[in-house]
Amino acid sequence: MADRYANFANSGPGRAVVKRLGLPDPPRLRRYRPGDPLTAGPVLLGAAPGGRLGEPVGKLLERAGVPVVATGAEGVRHGALIFDATGITDSTRLRALFDFFHPYAKSLHVCGRVIVLGTPPEAAASPKEATAQRSLEGLTRSIGKEFGRGVTAQLVYVAPGGEQSVESTLRFLLSGRSAYVSGQVIRIGAGAASEPADWDRPLDGKLALVTGAARGIGAAIAAVLARDGAEVIALDVPGAGDALADVANRARGRALQLDLTTADAPERLAGYLAAGPHGGVDIVVHNAGITRDRTIARMDESRWDAVIGVNLTAPERVNDVLLDRGLIKPGGRIVGVASIAGIAGNRGQTNYATSKAGVIGLVQATAPLLAGRDITINAVAPGFIETAMTAKMPFGLREAGRRLNSMSQGGLPVDVAETIAWFASPGSATITGNVVRVCGQSLLGA
Amino acid sequence: MADRYANFANSGPGRAVVKRLGLPDPPRLRRYRPGDPLTAGPVLLGAAPGGRLGEPVGKLLERAGVPVVATGAEGVRHGALIFDATGITDSTRLRALFDFFHPYAKSLHVCGRVIVLGTPPEAAASPKEATAQRSLEGLTRSIGKEFGRGVTAQLVYVAPGGEQSVESTLRFLLSGRSAYVSGQVIRIGAGAASEPADWDRPLDGKLALVTGAARGIGAAIAAVLARDGAEVIALDVPGAGDALADVANRARGRALQLDLTTADAPERLAGYLAAGPHGGVDIVVHNAGITRDRTIARMDESRWDAVIGVNLTAPERVNDVLLDRGLIKPGGRIVGVASIAGIAGNRGQTNYATSKAGVIGLVQATAPLLAGRDITINAVAPGFIETAMTAKMPFGLREAGRRLNSMSQGGLPVDVAETIAWFASPGSATITGNVVRVCGQSLLGA
Repeated sequence: MADRYANFANSGPGRAVVKRLGLPDPPRLRRYRPGDPLTAGPVLLGAAPGGRLGEPVGKLLERAGVPVVATGAEGVRHGALIFDATGITDSTRLRALFDFFHPYAKSLHVCGRVIVLGTPPEAAASPKEATAQRSLEGLTRSIGKEFGRGVTAQLVYVAPGGEQSVESTLRFLLSGRSAYVSGQVIRIGAGAASEPADWDRPLDGKLALVTGAARGIGAAIAAVLARDGAEVIALDVPGAGDALADVANRARGRALQLDLTTADAPERLAGYLAAGPHGGVDIVVHNAGITRDRTIARMDESRWDAVIGVNLTAPERVNDVLLDRGLIKPGGRIVGVASIAGIAGNRGQTNYATSKAGVIGLVQATAPLLAGRDITINAVAPGFIETAMTAKMPFGLREAGRRLNSMSQGGLPVDVAETIAWFASPGSATITGNVVRVCGQSLLGA
Repeated sequence: MADRYANFANSGPGRAVVKRLGLPDPPRLRRYRPGDPLTAGPVLLGAAPGGRLGEPVGKLLERAGVPVVATGAEGVRHGALIFDATGITDSTRLRALFDFFHPYAKSLHVCGRVIVLGTPPEAAASPKEATAQRSLEGLTRSIGKEFGRGVTAQLVYVAPGGEQSVESTLRFLLSGRSAYVSGQVIRIGAGAASEPADWDRPLDGKLALVTGAARGIGAAIAAVLARDGAEVIALDVPGAGDALADVANRARGRALQLDLTTADAPERLAGYLAAGPHGGVDIVVHNAGITRDRTIARMDESRWDAVIGVNLTAPERVNDVLLDRGLIKPGGRIVGVASIAGIAGNRGQTNYATSKAGVIGLVQATAPLLAGRDITINAVAPGFIETAMTAKMPFGLREAGRRLNSMSQGGLPVDVAETIAWFASPGSATITGNVVRVCGQSLLGA
């Protein structure tokens, strides 16, 4: 799991070598600790004329104690550049983006943040507006690739009527929680989200179920949800015994040994949750997943069936039973774990990519149906994450995965976990049907 | 424009060196010439039980003179593997894909074809079906990366009611016309498309306008549309004089010198078309585009304005005037040219990527509005195409662009042109709002 090159590049002598030879320069990413300020410096907030988000965003940043400025001054380093582009109603007005970003492109702190706020093209009032708003995606993804130094860049589409529900997302994106999330497009729907009493413990009083929790990313999810205040049920297969117990103990939660691919597992899980003190569950994270890599020519049917069964069919069956029984409560959150392989496909992973593309389908198909029940469903799609699994990859493949992204390094399990915690927040009630990559803006895609 | 490495790799001694050293192995791609058979061998056609496309597809292939078999035999090489997956209504039935592809994965000719037919997730009858159908994307993209040897793989979603309108797409995908198109998802809508009298001249009797026609990709578009039977108006800026006249002559068409970014250009173009013998135009290809690369920190406003103006605002203005005046006739086709940079973003191209993402927005926002007028609008998104522009790129960047795709080589201008000709076909009447990459399944994406 050690990225020795990144450690070297961040050492005293290493910095000099990296700079002189023009080698990949992986910055030390700023990651979240409770109590940290949201940004390393003031936020420069700009807007195209006629925008509807500049004012509410300015106010919420002030309430959050973040210094906000409207123009930069010589030598001042900004923690973030936020631009409200909702006023851009046709392509001739895109120039406002250049006017804002050109003079301040070099003004960001290391690990600074770029956030462009727009109107979802599908909610625009005219084709001209939809076109201009869609073009924002090209801008933010290019900025993510240009700025380097750990700077992330995102496009956040806020539906008309969603202006008061952006705080959980801005807090996520500004903070070190989103260290390895860049080049993403996030959609916030209309409606009001509730505000947690304590933004450092937004999940206080919530019960969360995490599958595949014994190791790697699953263990990190359990830890982060617990840190954010949730009571955690850490679920894994019976064979994971000791490791699972450790995770549950560290999260001060409960361990549940269950193989979700067995015929009666969803019913048994439902019984367990119904009998618990909460009489249900608030947050369900379908993290359990396996790989059984072979080209399809060399694959046997058991490898195909196992991967589809664990990664896709099991989450479907669990959702069905828990939703049918009303065990996921209003305000509930379902989070799936997809993968870049499910987006771009991958050699040797027809089974895995099929299952993970299916997870995206599950999220997109289910989100509209759950909206009326006040339950959201979203997915993360991890890229190269440093785990025991990636540590076993051949050197060349591993180095390519680590370096071919805007951060020049692999992500950590905690980065995936933080993104899931953002979806899980009460403040994210109007975020549903999203698939957000946790990939450092990997070059790979579709 | 010469890919010397590919020429070497396809030479006698080169083949041996490439094989022994495990170097990238760019196959010589099969490209279309009128009269060519659609495939190099029989099509193996399979289906999951309950599918609705196997039968109509089998019949149309027979009518087209393509041999079709239902099971493979020892030693038989197939020209294509086509699988009707519309019968897959939940994830437990995805196994049918493995059962079809596993035994025949090695049975394809060089430059063979894989086509998976599905139901658009948004038109599925249940969330389970939508999920399973969405998962097909992971499969086809993985197969595209696995099979190599010039084999392409696509997913074609056919809306219920569109079963009789798949022929233009199957002909495009099976033939050498789609040599450099792989890993794509294509959506065919409901409704009937008309059948050209002669599939080798599907554009007979049509008038096509091609902007930026003097060079490179634009010149190839003019030539291909003319070859397919269209009368071509080749448009470019006044400075392109001689080159433009050459293109128009070779296409036996007309040259039109006009700078579309001037205030009165759309009106002048409208006047020209209205006064012509057709009293309008059938096919409009917005190919004119420029790059003015700089990071946004180093860019000046003229570079920003020029790129947005030529690549995005000009097509919008031309569409507005031609559509307002009814000069794009029923059965009309509008085709935009986007770019991988507009999908994934690119360092040094904030202006270009913004404009090209906008072209995608234009297509998606306009398609529903034109459906009632029997006009389609789609876009191609080229990847690395061998042109005078890419020939000037630094060696490392150029080689990366050429090799980092499933074909291990750059595409040719004709590949973009063929894709546009497919959109333009009368047989493609139910294809609208699509953005299809012509990139050899480049690894780059979002």
